[in-house]
Amino acid sequence: MRPPFDPTLYLVTDTALCLPRPVADVVRAAVAGGVTAVQVRDKLAPRRELLALTRSVQAALADRPDVPVVVNDAVDVALLAGADGVHVGQEDLPADEVRALIGPDRLLGVSVESAADLAEALALPPGTVDVVGLSPVWATPTKPEAGPGLGLDATRELAAAAHAGGLRAVAIGGIDATRAAAAAATGVDGICVVSAVCAAPDPRAAAARLRAALSPVGAR
Amino acid sequence: MRPPFDPTLYLVTDTALCLPRPVADVVRAAVAGGVTAVQVRDKLAPRRELLALTRSVQAALADRPDVPVVVNDAVDVALLAGADGVHVGQEDLPADEVRALIGPDRLLGVSVESAADLAEALALPPGTVDVVGLSPVWATPTKPEAGPGLGLDATRELAAAAHAGGLRAVAIGGIDATRAAAAAATGVDGICVVSAVCAAPDPRAAAARLRAALSPVGAR
Repeated sequence: MRPPFDPTLYLVTDTALCLPRPVADVVRAAVAGGVTAVQVRDKLAPRRELLALTRSVQAALADRPDVPVVVNDAVDVALLAGADGVHVGQEDLPADEVRALIGPDRLLGVSVESAADLAEALALPPGTVDVVGLSPVWATPTKPEAGPGLGLDATRELAAAAHAGGLRAVAIGGIDATRAAAAAATGVDGICVVSAVCAAPDPRAAAARLRAALSPVGAR
Repeated sequence: MRPPFDPTLYLVTDTALCLPRPVADVVRAAVAGGVTAVQVRDKLAPRRELLALTRSVQAALADRPDVPVVVNDAVDVALLAGADGVHVGQEDLPADEVRALIGPDRLLGVSVESAADLAEALALPPGTVDVVGLSPVWATPTKPEAGPGLGLDATRELAAAAHAGGLRAVAIGGIDATRAAAAAATGVDGICVVSAVCAAPDPRAAAARLRAALSPVGAR
């Protein structure tokens, strides 16, 4: 059984962008503002530091069991922290191998940068992958190596193909409050944000603005 | 039950130094020359690449079950590859957490750069750590951040303290054929080499020279 996972507004952390605030403080504020899921990402941190970071985020959300905490890349850290899931990119451990390590009770997300990547995720046994991160919708300074961006049309096509194959899809890359509605309108199940929240002076307000942009009626 | 582990001549791989040769080819030759244990280390490789690298080394040593293959840092990779063990540094996952993940049937090595690091390893429950890597004996270009070097006297003291606490000890850092005998004379159970083998034009001959330097009588 997978943990609850509402990907509507999915925060991916960036330790440097949160500075001087601890990541856990930013996460806590962002969740109060409307973030529904959190992925701890820090490609520069040694594993000992990443484990401590993950636990600090989990502790900050101890009263929010509805908000899953997922670890980027580091399966060993996710296992030790008892995280709700793992998210892997195309250079990280392959999804089927990750699923073998994490068992059936954790979420598994995979970054998809092309139709070929998506086809590979869809070819895996059902239950291997839960969600694909369509990446990047727009070029983004937080992941410059990710390239020029899929654009909205390709994002829409990939989201539809993911849904047809039984996977959920989230959009990531260059999404801020001005672009959130357009990204969501591609039919994805949620949007991921990094700098739009981590670099915001008020992460709670930034998250609330993003939620409002996603659900203009509900937010009124 | 731990796998067999003879640390007499312990090769730590460096992918760049092996170039243009595949790491697995260098390892195979080095084992033919007398290397008794192998640690796959590549701090720059993404985990997918490190997993493939580890499996290539294991495949190259399929006919040498007496030579364990240990993975540096990446516990997830070690688990997926079914490696014989894990080696962690002071910034990697803590030894007690690693032991919890790998269970009782794999080797666990820990880098020790000071008496304080060793005391920490010795304070863990018996059976947590198998071997400490006293590091660096001499300053080494393959790990410049490791500092100026313990020197032979401190290495001797740390090795004795490790033995008194029931741990094995190996020496690492700046060891080549000209220094192997001096490093071994500190009382360690083995010496680790990186560039002395990985950068050698003939890794088999380089390993044989190191073995000869360690056991001058037996090598005659």
